[in-house]
Amino acid sequence: MIYLAVVGGSSCTEQEMELARETGKEIAGRGAVLLCGGGSGVMEAASAGASQEGGIVIGILPGGSAREGNQYLTAAIATGMGEARNAIITRTADAVIAIGGEYGTLSEIALAIKMGKPVIGLRSWRLSPPHGVKDGIIEKAGAEEAVETAFCLINY
Amino acid sequence: MIYLAVVGGSSCTEQEMELARETGKEIAGRGAVLLCGGGSGVMEAASAGASQEGGIVIGILPGGSAREGNQYLTAAIATGMGEARNAIITRTADAVIAIGGEYGTLSEIALAIKMGKPVIGLRSWRLSPPHGVKDGIIEKAGAEEAVETAFCLINY
Amino acid sequence: MIYLAVVGGSSCTEQEMELARETGKEIAGRGAVLLCGGGSGVMEAASAGASQEGGIVIGILPGGSAREGNQYLTAAIATGMGEARNAIITRTADAVIAIGGEYGTLSEIALAIKMGKPVIGLRSWRLSPPHGVKDGIIEKAGAEEAVETAFCLINY
Amino acid sequence: MIYLAVVGGSSCTEQEMELARETGKEIAGRGAVLLCGGGSGVMEAASAGASQEGGIVIGILPGGSAREGNQYLTAAIATGMGEARNAIITRTADAVIAIGGEYGTLSEIALAIKMGKPVIGLRSWRLSPPHGVKDGIIEKAGAEEAVETAFCLINY
Repeated sequence: MIYLAVVGGSSCTEQEMELARETGKEIAGRGAVLLCGGGSGVMEAASAGASQEGGIVIGILPGGSAREGNQYLTAAIATGMGEARNAIITRTADAVIAIGGEYGTLSEIALAIKMGKPVIGLRSWRLSPPHGVKDGIIEKAGAEEAVETAFCLINY
Repeated sequence: MIYLAVVGGSSCTEQEMELARETGKEIAGRGAVLLCGGGSGVMEAASAGASQEGGIVIGILPGGSAREGNQYLTAAIATGMGEARNAIITRTADAVIAIGGEYGTLSEIALAIKMGKPVIGLRSWRLSPPHGVKDGIIEKAGAEEAVETAFCLINY
Repeated sequence: MIYLAVVGGSSCTEQEMELARETGKEIAGRGAVLLCGGGSGVMEAASAGASQEGGIVIGILPGGSAREGNQYLTAAIATGMGEARNAIITRTADAVIAIGGEYGTLSEIALAIKMGKPVIGLRSWRLSPPHGVKDGIIEKAGAEEAVETAFCLINY
Repeated sequence: MIYLAVVGGSSCTEQEMELARETGKEIAGRGAVLLCGGGSGVMEAASAGASQEGGIVIGILPGGSAREGNQYLTAAIATGMGEARNAIITRTADAVIAIGGEYGTLSEIALAIKMGKPVIGLRSWRLSPPHGVKDGIIEKAGAEEAVETAFCLINY
């Protein structure tokens, strides 16, 4: 089983939502499990896309109730741990696709890179690492390309 | 979505394994998600039973790799948090069914009761609470009865 | 540095409070760090006892604010993880002393035994383990004896 | 009690080490608790500085043994949760000072900003947030100025 996480803002632009939906579709279409934070915005759009393709969608929620997840989840995990759940998402994922996003998303990008997971960015954060530190985000323009790159780097 | 956790030892007797398998089947047969620690023994037998019925099976693993779960999981969550993952299992579950088990299982029973979740015991721990503390385990003899009781107490 | 955890109810009897205070004093008197859940009841009484002896007292809080701890803590850790913080207490502790307590305390007893840490009980839970499982609680009657036993088993 | 976290790489330059030591001294000199990840590099240098001033130093470790922390810690917390412990550091801290650092440090910066905590950067990451997202790092050149700014923003 391959696990791909889609991370991004709980509120987002129409364009980001569309990108997230397509990314979710691509992930499910290739038979991978979609992992996300289980909330709204980018998370919900990716979940909807994957769900539409009949894929498995897992939401790792910050709160204490499995009822708080979006409607497209195959299953929700109520961690009750707040933002510490971001580390569970990146730990489980084989690769992470970031779409837009603010500081929660940046923390997931950073945790994923720290854990050695490939991170693909779609209109998301751009990093200017300090001297001697590599930029760990691979920027792509479209959903298909992003998911293809993720699979490529996992198999590698 | 209803989430039922089955907790128990990673090594167990034949009889416990059979009970776990039947419990997994009953849970899936009623359309609930089976949650477990994702490992071997009682966890694997319950996963196999639910999987056989076409149910959704989620393993919340202590380790850092989603590859470490048993083969019957729909999805594995690699928490990388060791025994602290027990609290995620009980937080997510609507009710917990304990089968046999040692101290890990006892911690899950205790956490679930602390969180106000119904706990049903099948040949598992029996508690002798200190004065003034209620015994929070409902003992049942068979898988069907255990799952029925769990559903009953959730709906209640 | 030796770390001894005192676990018990956030509400407790006068007798338990007195036992906790003496236990805290003994721990600090022997130069160990007192770990606890940082709350009221047994936790606060143990903290007060250790603090009175000039000891270091660390509270591992379930909530998200370090301001929520009792007044005797040298430092409070705001885990924001609810009951999952119990596993951090037992992971850090070299030994655990349980005084009275309800299901939160039982979960700490069980987690500690699972992690191979000595657990000493003072008027706390008594276990009736299933066949083939050892009773992991060492019962003692007084604070001094409990702390002495804890040190003994750590050094051993 | 005021809690100031110093975050940065476990390996670092001489200059970062010196900045960390001074920052630790300033924090302890003002009577605040120094929080850190408990490891080497920036964490150890800050711990040494605070310890030299007689301050309280708490290390929140990723691993499962309280023995793994650096030698300057008043107390070490063994979370056994890997990088998820970063969220405990930022949750507990009233403000965060970042010195140099790589992706672990970036995750702490991001988590702290997400949680609404002031973040001061000393020769650390510079952010180029996506359109509509504020840059949450306040850059300062020296240790004294950094700690002063942190206190200022907490009190504010």
